[in-house]
Parts: sequence; C-alpha cells; structure tokens
Amino acid sequence: MIYPIDETHDPHLRSWIESANDPHTDFPIQNLPFGLFADPEDEEDMRIGVAIGDRVLDLSTVAEEIWLNTGATDLIAEACVVDSLEYILLLDPESRQQLRHRISTLLREDVDEEERELLESCLLQAKGLDLALPVAIPNYTDFYSSVYHATNIGRMFRPDNPLMPNYKWIPIGYHGRASSVFVSGTDIRRPSGQTMADDAEAPVFGPSKVLDYEMEVGFFVGTGNFPGEPIPISQAEQHIFGLCLVNDWSARDIQRWEYQPLGPFLSKSFATTVSPWVVTMEALAPYRFPSFVREPGDPQPLAYLDSPNNRDHGGYDINLEVFISTPRMRTQGLDPHRLSHSNTKDLYWTFAQMLTHHSSNGCNLESGDLIASGTVSGATPDNLGSLIELTQRGAMPIELPTGEVRRFLENGDEVIMRGYCEREGVRRIGFGECRGVVVS
Amino acid sequence: MIYPIDETHDPHLRSWIESANDPHTDFPIQNLPFGLFADPEDEEDMRIGVAIGDRVLDLSTVAEEIWLNTGATDLIAEACVVDSLEYILLLDPESRQQLRHRISTLLREDVDEEERELLESCLLQAKGLDLALPVAIPNYTDFYSSVYHATNIGRMFRPDNPLMPNYKWIPIGYHGRASSVFVSGTDIRRPSGQTMADDAEAPVFGPSKVLDYEMEVGFFVGTGNFPGEPIPISQAEQHIFGLCLVNDWSARDIQRWEYQPLGPFLSKSFATTVSPWVVTMEALAPYRFPSFVREPGDPQPLAYLDSPNNRDHGGYDINLEVFISTPRMRTQGLDPHRLSHSNTKDLYWTFAQMLTHHSSNGCNLESGDLIASGTVSGATPDNLGSLIELTQRGAMPIELPTGEVRRFLENGDEVIMRGYCEREGVRRIGFGECRGVVVS
Repeated sequence: MIYPIDETHDPHLRSWIESANDPHTDFPIQNLPFGLFADPEDEEDMRIGVAIGDRVLDLSTVAEEIWLNTGATDLIAEACVVDSLEYILLLDPESRQQLRHRISTLLREDVDEEERELLESCLLQAKGLDLALPVAIPNYTDFYSSVYHATNIGRMFRPDNPLMPNYKWIPIGYHGRASSVFVSGTDIRRPSGQTMADDAEAPVFGPSKVLDYEMEVGFFVGTGNFPGEPIPISQAEQHIFGLCLVNDWSARDIQRWEYQPLGPFLSKSFATTVSPWVVTMEALAPYRFPSFVREPGDPQPLAYLDSPNNRDHGGYDINLEVFISTPRMRTQGLDPHRLSHSNTKDLYWTFAQMLTHHSSNGCNLESGDLIASGTVSGATPDNLGSLIELTQRGAMPIELPTGEVRRFLENGDEVIMRGYCEREGVRRIGFGECRGVVVS
Repeated sequence: MIYPIDETHDPHLRSWIESANDPHTDFPIQNLPFGLFADPEDEEDMRIGVAIGDRVLDLSTVAEEIWLNTGATDLIAEACVVDSLEYILLLDPESRQQLRHRISTLLREDVDEEERELLESCLLQAKGLDLALPVAIPNYTDFYSSVYHATNIGRMFRPDNPLMPNYKWIPIGYHGRASSVFVSGTDIRRPSGQTMADDAEAPVFGPSKVLDYEMEVGFFVGTGNFPGEPIPISQAEQHIFGLCLVNDWSARDIQRWEYQPLGPFLSKSFATTVSPWVVTMEALAPYRFPSFVREPGDPQPLAYLDSPNNRDHGGYDINLEVFISTPRMRTQGLDPHRLSHSNTKDLYWTFAQMLTHHSSNGCNLESGDLIASGTVSGATPDNLGSLIELTQRGAMPIELPTGEVRRFLENGDEVIMRGYCEREGVRRIGFGECRGVVVS
C-alpha cells in the first residue's frame, strides 16, 4: 500500500498540546494537515503551518531553526522553509511519509523537555491567524462523481430519463475557473448574469435570484505528468497529495440559460471556496473504503479505470455536513443550522479514477491542480449536497429555527461546510471548516 | 478611440531592415508584434522579441543597452528587460502606445547611422530562434462566437433546430485547459479516450479516430479585474492586449460521448496550439470593423453588451487560412494545401463582448489569460473552420493534390494556420503561422 497505516495513526497517541487530545478536535496528532498562514502581528511572509488542536505549528520556522540547524543536507526540511506548499507537494510519497513521521514525533507527549521548549516558540493560536489558499492553483477541474446528485439534477430536466447514457461509463467533468478559487472566509458577491424566465420572450441581465451551494471535496495534485503521458490507475495515488472541502457556488438561473451546449460557465466561475487545511492522503489512510459497488446490470469500469487496489481501497469514508447561518440566526445567538450530511463513500467514481481519466488523453496535470468531486449527495432526502436538490428546485422550502424559510441563498447567509472521519478503533480526524457569506 | 491610427500605421513608412519592406511580409514596420524567444546559440534566458521582416529585434537587449543606459527612470523600458511579457501586458494603453512609437522609431529608414549600428547587434535571424509561448497563461477560455459554426455543428445533431435558443442572446463559452496550451511547432500526440460507436453496447478506450482542428483567434488579457468587479463594455478594450492564432485541436469521437451534460472536456484538453507572435490591438487599429450585423428579427445585444463604439468598431477584419501538409505531400515537395479561409468579421460576438460577458458575473480575469473566439466559420462552403464542417462529419472527404483523401487528420499530417489583414490604403500585416504535426 502506498499509504500504510503505521504508528502515526495509533489512536492512543497523545500530544503535549492538550487541545489536540480533545476527542472532538478536527486536528489531533493523527491528522497533521498542511496550510499556509500569516500572523497579522508579524510582518513576515506566509509560512507553512500544521494544524494541531487549537494551535498551528509554524513548520517553516521548525524546519529552519531545528531541522536545518545541523548543517546537513535535508531536502525534506528545505521543502518546508519556503512560503508556499509547492515543494512539499512535489515530495515523493516516501519523503512525505518521512515528513509526517518527523512532525508526529515533535508533537508527541514523550518529546523531551528541551525540544518542547524550542517548539513552543513555534506554536501559535490558530484563532487570529490569516489563512491563505493552501496552494496557488494552476488549474481547477470539477467532476460530477455522485450518481445520486446526477440523477437528482437529471430528473428535474428529464423526468423519464434522468441519467445520461454515458454516466455509468465515463467520469464526467469539466474545467472550472482557477482564478476565482478563494479560501474559506472570503465573502461571496452575488453574481449578475443573463437569466430567462419560463414565460419570458427575452432574457434579462441582473443579480442571480437562485444562488446555491454545492458540497464537494477536492484533491490537490502532488506531482503532475508530462503532456502525452497519461497516469495509469496503478500509479494514480502517488500523484494525489491531499483533500480539502470545496463549495462550488452555483447560480442556478444563470446556469439554466447558459449551459447548453458547452456546459456551466459564468454560473460557477464567480467563486469557489476551499477549506484552508489540506488533509493528506497519509492521514486518511485508515478511512479508505471499497469503491462504489455497482448495481446488478450496471457496467464495471473499463480496464483503464480499474485495478484491484482501486476496487478494494479506492473509496474514502468521509462525512460531510453543510450548515446555514442567517443574519437573524446570528442576531438571536443561534448556532448554524445543519441542512444536510453526506459521505464520499457514495461517490460513483474514486479520486484515483478521476485523476487517471483526466490524464488519459495525455492532458498534463500540474502540481497544485485542484480536482473536485462534484456535489456529494447520497441516497436519502437528508443526504443532498445542494439546495436545488433539498428544496426540489424551490418547491419545498426549508424552515429554519428562526421561522425563516429558504428556497435558495439570501444575502447575509453564511454557508458552512464541515468534514470528518470516524471509525471504531481509529482516531477521529476532521477537515476544519469551509465558510462563506453571501453579500450583495 | 483607445487605439488611434497614427504615423506608426502610415503605409509609406519604410524600415532599414529590407525584408520588412517586402509587400508580402507578415511583419512590416506597421505591425511590430511581441514574442518570447531564446537563441539556441546563446546561453541566455528567454528574451522579449519584436518580429520585423525576417528578423527579430531583441527588445530586452535594446531596453537594457539603449533605453536604460541614460540612468533615468523608465518604466516602459523596465517592462522590456525581463524574460517574460508580463510587465508589458500590464502597461496602461498610453504606455503601450509609447512603446510602439519607440520601437517604430528605432526601425525606421531615417534612424541615424550610429544608432543603427547599435541596433544591428540586437537583430537576429528569425529562422533558428526558439520561440516560446508568448505568455504564461493563467486561464484559458474558449468562446463559440461564430453563428455559422454553431449552426453547422448544431445541424448535425439537431437538423430541425440547429441553433440553441440562447445563442443569439448570450456569448456561449467554456473554460478550457490552460496547462496544455502549446506554442506553434509543438507535436500533437493523438489522444486516447472513451468513444461509443453508434451500434455498440459499450464504449471502448483507445486512440481517437476522428481528430480535427478548429481555426480560431484568441486574445490575451492585458490588465485583469478584481473579483466581483465586472469590466463594463465601455472599458473592455483597455483590457485587451493583442491577438494570436489558435488551433483548438478536437477529438470529435471523444467529444460526442463525453460532452453531455457538462460540455467538452478531454476531447479538447490534450492540446491547444497558439501562434508565437502577439499582434497588438494598436497594430490592428486600421482593421477595425463594425460588429456583426444582426438579421432582421434577431435580438440586439442586451445593454451590458452594447455600446456605440462596439457597434461601429468592435469587429475586426482578419483573414484566416488553414492548410494541411501530409507526409506524402512533403515527400513530393508539394506546398501545403489550403483547406479553407474565413474572416473574423463573421464573428457574431466581438472580443470586447466576450471579455465583458466573461467578467459580468464578477469573475476575475488575470493578466495573460487567453480568451479564444471559437471556430471561425463563415457563410459559404469554403469558409469552414474545421474538418467536421468541411467534410460534413466525414461524409464528403477532401481530395488532396497527391490523390490522398482526408475525412479527419491522420498521423503525420501538419495543420498550418495563417492570418493576415489587408485593406486598400493600409499596409498589410500578418500573424505568422500556427503549426502542429499530429503524431501517434
């Protein structure tokens, strides 16, 4: 296995940072996600951080002041001192594993007193730090990997024939807009665009009235491939660095009018939000799962998308939740209201299949590319990853604890996504949050 | 007018570089396109060049050794000394105009002897230089702006209703793949992918059998816009730097199976070829044209896509030609065979409309973004910008001078695109070539 389960995953492992031992934290010592941060009280550039409990370990400073202090050549440490994750993404899987072990060792309860004192000076309160986009994203691709989502959306447009004939054969995806991928916490301006009412003779241009979210996960490409050199499914996992949460904001009224025949364009390209912490494939190793089981009569994946490892371990058991917080809820001091939850186990195509398919025509993937799953919906009515599904295109409004109703998003609404993994006998790990407030 | 016609366009202006005075050259002194080159006999990095006749002026060296030699602050010259066009793209229109005047002055017949000697050391034979992608392209978008192309393609799939109801209202486009945009001369590997035969029960994975080109033009964004701040049509031209030729290679069999419902993806993302010289909007000023005249009964553009300037001068009169050269033709010493020609006058949407529409939802365009027109086809059978149109999906094969026939591209075929502007009383200018050989 390329991502072995080892002592860094031991559920009994404890950290000297007390908040990391809280059973509810997203960031125990078994997780160790990477991000980019700036300390507003400090004039320094962005630095690489590792989330641990309610703290952030300043990995750039650790690398510079501890690891590189010996004078010996240390390529892994050198990848950590720069103000970007770019060199960490390019580490080979073995070096990434080594880096994880090093960080884990530093943060364990049994670290020696002297080292701990040194490390404490590299530890910051997470609250108050500015988190940036974890990676400069050269290209962004969005797949459509949930058969439940594709069926739900298809049914609205083609009740008799909801799923396209290609769906169960080919991972459907499209190129998204890389420039408008923003980090969690960025306000989302309601987009304007052309929309065409059912009974109208002409479209109008103005602010979207049907603004929605889409709950997704995305992976960052570690090392890419050269043009014309596809990545076989047997090697796909080596090229996947880690995952984040993705909100693929969607203006449904703009989408409906523009999408034929070349697909969604401005209905999506105004904004995509990602969570700031990249949870590595190493951390997710205990949460691997068999890939989606096809129904009897459904085709098995073609050979280029199939491997024993992908069948047995290509899926991931990641719980996703989406919450809403309206201005009135915040005024009344109410917690965000959970709209739905789902799980990436329900994805029809695995991350490895998405990556291999993407490169199968020779397309060169680049280090740092973001490849998202598409909306993650499941089989039941509370497993729907978008409002258009939850409210059945607005026909079934959702009532909130304040008595307010929502068909789609209104200005001031905050959408909050969370993700976590938990399984008997394994330490719970989480993704943190992916947030965004809609503004006019 | 943002791009005035001035003495740099004077058709009687002559250069001391004799080849620039050839009436057939693409690169007379009235053109002055920018590119990036490396001299393989020299170890230096990429430098900025200006094509002039059969030579290239090493603008980086000119800026360094002549303009910056005085010690005075000179931001325009500083934009030229780096190994990328990025700072030239960011110059405001007035500074770009100044730069054009400076270069024009250096190359005119009446330049003084001493300066001319200095300049001769900055002049290289174009043949033998390595030309690079003119700009690092952050994002690539492809429109669908030819109503003739959209109608031709639509007719193949929906004979009774070829054009979608949205077409005449909204500039249709989609996000392309930026990583696989290559400079002219790069070999194009035939992509593999899933295809589904008409009578088959299951798709197969293998090399595309229906490989096509698409003859397009593209523009590079000069300065971008901030997220949430659309570019009004009245300011659109300020954000357009210049144009190049684009071959949007397309695997029709892959496209047919994958494109619903999210649009073309792997059928296009294996390769896009651009010509190496960026012809500036300043150079193209004499070739402006009224925008496409709508047929009676067709809608006029909505207000956000309309302006008097766009109506009167939004179009461009650029001739495009596409040629094929097969291995047998080359063996027999035959010239490339012209397949078709068309003109950007026939585009239904102007470049300014494409740019304004693209940003109308708040999407942030970035400096260096490539925005292509879509296949440029015209009204007559010899004005078709792709083989699928020319051969009517392969039903009407093309006979070549060797007796060979082509329905679609075969391995070894070279596709060559050329573009030029000519008009009574104005100096002819051209784009150079956009070439690519299909390899297995």
